[in-house]
Amino acid sequence: MSLRYASCDWGTSSFRIRMVEDGVSKSEINWPFGIRSIHDSVSNECDRDSKFADFLKRGLSALGFGDMPIVLSGMASSTIGWRELRYAKVPLELDGSNLVHERLSLENGTPVFLISGACTNSDIMRGEETEVIGILNHEDYCQYANGCLLLLPGTHSKHLVIDNYRVIGWRTFMTGELFEALTTATILKQTTSTESEGTDEDFLTGVDGGFATGMESGLFRARVRSVLDGAPNESNCAFLSGLLIGSELSHLSHAAQDKPLLVAGPPGLTGRYQLAITQTGAFPSVVTVDLPEGAAMHGHSFLLPRWLDEGESPLA
Amino acid sequence: MSLRYASCDWGTSSFRIRMVEDGVSKSEINWPFGIRSIHDSVSNECDRDSKFADFLKRGLSALGFGDMPIVLSGMASSTIGWRELRYAKVPLELDGSNLVHERLSLENGTPVFLISGACTNSDIMRGEETEVIGILNHEDYCQYANGCLLLLPGTHSKHLVIDNYRVIGWRTFMTGELFEALTTATILKQTTSTESEGTDEDFLTGVDGGFATGMESGLFRARVRSVLDGAPNESNCAFLSGLLIGSELSHLSHAAQDKPLLVAGPPGLTGRYQLAITQTGAFPSVVTVDLPEGAAMHGHSFLLPRWLDEGESPLA
Repeated sequence: MSLRYASCDWGTSSFRIRMVEDGVSKSEINWPFGIRSIHDSVSNECDRDSKFADFLKRGLSALGFGDMPIVLSGMASSTIGWRELRYAKVPLELDGSNLVHERLSLENGTPVFLISGACTNSDIMRGEETEVIGILNHEDYCQYANGCLLLLPGTHSKHLVIDNYRVIGWRTFMTGELFEALTTATILKQTTSTESEGTDEDFLTGVDGGFATGMESGLFRARVRSVLDGAPNESNCAFLSGLLIGSELSHLSHAAQDKPLLVAGPPGLTGRYQLAITQTGAFPSVVTVDLPEGAAMHGHSFLLPRWLDEGESPLA
Repeated sequence: MSLRYASCDWGTSSFRIRMVEDGVSKSEINWPFGIRSIHDSVSNECDRDSKFADFLKRGLSALGFGDMPIVLSGMASSTIGWRELRYAKVPLELDGSNLVHERLSLENGTPVFLISGACTNSDIMRGEETEVIGILNHEDYCQYANGCLLLLPGTHSKHLVIDNYRVIGWRTFMTGELFEALTTATILKQTTSTESEGTDEDFLTGVDGGFATGMESGLFRARVRSVLDGAPNESNCAFLSGLLIGSELSHLSHAAQDKPLLVAGPPGLTGRYQLAITQTGAFPSVVTVDLPEGAAMHGHSFLLPRWLDEGESPLA
């Protein structure tokens, strides 16, 4: 008998659900239907419950099941999600004890554990709290739960300060979204191209500039390189990416305080951050977190047994 | 007899032409037809000359004239303009002696003086070089031509260093364009609104943050203020505007070197920069340049008499 459940990470623009057995993903589905698309189809509040529940049932069914417990994190607990849950407050215990969650259920009684985000007085996250719990309760990385900096790069990059088995604070950098906006909605669109990767040299030139003086005095350089030097669009794009990441890292360096730095994210992106971090020379101890099945799933696997009633676990 | 000519400032997305007599604008036309729209309608290079010339003739005709000399600055000398002219190199003499320009003509012989931009090894401008010449040859501001910092706020804000009657360098900040991209193409779109101005207090909170630590650690704050504090969208928008301007000014402060700072631009925008500059307390001597008819027109009025052949001036 083993614990079998569905791990679901529902973002603004994507839906990912996995069948997990004994902490290992057995099958997985990714659909481009974020909560935004469900929210936009909701005509009234009665409708909301059934629209979200129906979509989850379709996910379970596509995985080949109808009645597994579901653990659900991400934007599904936001204002535009299934049900809005208040944020947990820092300090956030890494054992999940003060995480905000609610037990809902599908029509057939299948339990759904909806996880909320967390906030400080000046920042918020929704989804990442579960990833942090997944990473710092994983056997390979739990040694860092007593103190580290955890960097989660992405659309909204998070710099989290971990101390004594708690998340005590973080800051959000809109690095990924800024890169997207600059390369699609400004003059830089004409002189950057993401079609192929530029060289590490271009990227690191950007990192140096961003780390030294911040991003903004360098943004127009991504155009000037093209006009004055004839730099190809891939080169300017790598430069711009380095500029933004270098600038982001300059803020992390203020918080470093000799803690080990963990970097966790999709391998390609984590690799770029690693390269940039090495270039700055500012972080003596850096660890790349390698969780191919995703930090959120590990968080769900850690949390679910704590939330099931006696007798509900093991289930299969 | 007086000098009568047409002053034309042709940008990427707008076309402005004025009838000027003795240095004073007598009538003016603004059309939303930038060089981009002409360029996109050009099917081959033979076509290019006639498309641009025809459009200028329509401008002259709308002003009620057919044969005034035209002085033309802005993007018309760029790769997508009427004719691409090389950039003038720094140091740029404020008497215009090393400015790059070319004399073209319409079919009826009307001369058109097309002005090119300027470059350093690491930055470019096209249009602003004429504005700088206009400002620092104007009787109200020529006293600053021997040394000042000149800030031209806008889509691509310029910080110019003036020394000994020359432009010796500048840096471009994409502040205006960044603000536009952030409020239309990122998550901040949902929590900012430019429909009405926020308070000076919101704006100055942003300025403080941007000036102290740069923009990027504050960008997500424009969202968090809404989610955690219920701040209205106008308030978040003013905060964001302050954040970007404060951050831009932090770079200017490095270059200040006790020179007087001149700020020249559209009155609303210049007012906001003035407010931010006062808040930082970093600039002891600040002058707002007030040229209701525009710096470019003053540049054209200064330059044209130097470029007309003997006997061509005065013309009317």
